[in-house]
Amino acid sequence: MSTDLVVALDIGGTKIAGALVDGAGRILVRAQRPTPAREDGETVMRAVEAVLEELDHSPLRASAGAVGIGSAGPVDASAGTVSPVNVPGWRDFPLVERVRRAAGLPVTLVGDGVAMTAAEHWRGAARGHDNALCLVVSTGVGGGLVLDGRVHGGPTGNAGHIGHISVDLDGEPCACGGRGCVERIASGPHIARRALENGWHPGPDGDTSAAAVAAAARAGDPVAVASFERAGQALAAGIAATATLVEIDIAVVGGGVAGAGEVLFGPLRRSLRSYATLSFVQGLTVVPALTGTDAGLLGAAAAAVPRAGASTS
Amino acid sequence: MSTDLVVALDIGGTKIAGALVDGAGRILVRAQRPTPAREDGETVMRAVEAVLEELDHSPLRASAGAVGIGSAGPVDASAGTVSPVNVPGWRDFPLVERVRRAAGLPVTLVGDGVAMTAAEHWRGAARGHDNALCLVVSTGVGGGLVLDGRVHGGPTGNAGHIGHISVDLDGEPCACGGRGCVERIASGPHIARRALENGWHPGPDGDTSAAAVAAAARAGDPVAVASFERAGQALAAGIAATATLVEIDIAVVGGGVAGAGEVLFGPLRRSLRSYATLSFVQGLTVVPALTGTDAGLLGAAAAAVPRAGASTS
Repeated sequence: MSTDLVVALDIGGTKIAGALVDGAGRILVRAQRPTPAREDGETVMRAVEAVLEELDHSPLRASAGAVGIGSAGPVDASAGTVSPVNVPGWRDFPLVERVRRAAGLPVTLVGDGVAMTAAEHWRGAARGHDNALCLVVSTGVGGGLVLDGRVHGGPTGNAGHIGHISVDLDGEPCACGGRGCVERIASGPHIARRALENGWHPGPDGDTSAAAVAAAARAGDPVAVASFERAGQALAAGIAATATLVEIDIAVVGGGVAGAGEVLFGPLRRSLRSYATLSFVQGLTVVPALTGTDAGLLGAAAAAVPRAGASTS
Repeated sequence: MSTDLVVALDIGGTKIAGALVDGAGRILVRAQRPTPAREDGETVMRAVEAVLEELDHSPLRASAGAVGIGSAGPVDASAGTVSPVNVPGWRDFPLVERVRRAAGLPVTLVGDGVAMTAAEHWRGAARGHDNALCLVVSTGVGGGLVLDGRVHGGPTGNAGHIGHISVDLDGEPCACGGRGCVERIASGPHIARRALENGWHPGPDGDTSAAAVAAAARAGDPVAVASFERAGQALAAGIAATATLVEIDIAVVGGGVAGAGEVLFGPLRRSLRSYATLSFVQGLTVVPALTGTDAGLLGAAAAAVPRAGASTS
């Protein structure tokens, strides 16, 4: 039995993806089901089991030595439970125990931000960095940390939750109950909301997504540019705070909003110089993520089998 | 030779303290010199050597197996150098090599925030906690982290620098070059400045220190109360951000401003509920530090000899 081959599960509010992933990070077999996110917990679990059963059909499956799960959060890695915000049927759901029974293998659970970080550290832009922050800027803002060469999930697997640190202590209320959180300023929906509130008009197709705002910004629309600048400023303040607290030397930014490119990265890097001021953080760099839509599967695989340069703690 | 006995050095802008510290955290012998902070680097080093020589007079000195240094920052633990803001004669000063030659022992260097954290983890309020933030709120605001049961100094020994994370991204310029830093709102001088700017009048002795503002707040002066509330709010936002990023379960607050007691801790704990909102940080507690003025020496000793529950990484 090769312990290099693992079963990876990437569980989100839209889809449940599974794969057999080898020790080089290659995805050899895939399976996927929509997440029945509005159904009861057992129905959601049956979709997970269906993905596992489809992978069982592969002759490679017998060589797998472990299961890694990256799940939408919050998760509790110490209890082995998940309570994804967008899957109300799962509250403190014992996912680790249920998957262990279904698969007959040891199971490791991490949050999706931590999984993306494990992927970028193993096969992406954080490779070779002993201290890194990886972010997903999308509908929400998530993240994870690499410290001392290892992915640092924290006791419950939620560390690196940069979307819900406040960078504006008197700012707008956030859905989490806080104020002025990074996500409240820099997520895709909030970039679009701010542009609309300040007078940006969508094109004839009526597209009011952050991607449409990014296109307008690239075409020079000043309101669209300003909305991305504000997002870049909030991300810069949050990244600088993280670096000042734990001494990272690289921040890797992925997720749909990162697809805006220089419209986001330009102001982010400029603002970073205003917030990352102490000598030990001045060398901090910000780069785009490399692992793309497979980040969740790769990260789940990395979490399952600690490897040199890709281990989790 | 007992490796339990170490030489500890606590180097600040005002004094250079030295001690022989045993494995139980007892300070057996002390020596101290004023820091000739305005003199050239060699003059400052001679004061360090004078402290080491005074300790040499103790018959216990021969049993010491290592030297630990906690120094005002910035420090660079990887290079073994220090550049304390308030000691301009030392810039990238090779303190580790110089002390190694003078003492003939292996030397470990950490920043003063990390040293205080090591002390609180070894003998203070963070004892038994695997994930903690310790803060010094004084003329400045410093700190350090315990992660996974070990003091986490980071690659250069500066991790936990909570005083210079921004909690107000559009806020007042900070001396570090940033904006809205925790220190810019919560340090003793800024508590006093804000009270004076908002109409607080000192007593007949003309004392405009944060301690005087604290006394006025205890007597019910609303401007003094409001200045401490704002400091508590900024500390709460910074502590919550740290907990959200690295999953700490306790924050230990020391330093002169912490002596204000409930005038500071009351609003800090109330504000914390507004910023520490995610499930995995809601159990976070805030307590006063216990190691007092010996924190620097105890922490330097802890850094020199990694112990169960008090090791540094």
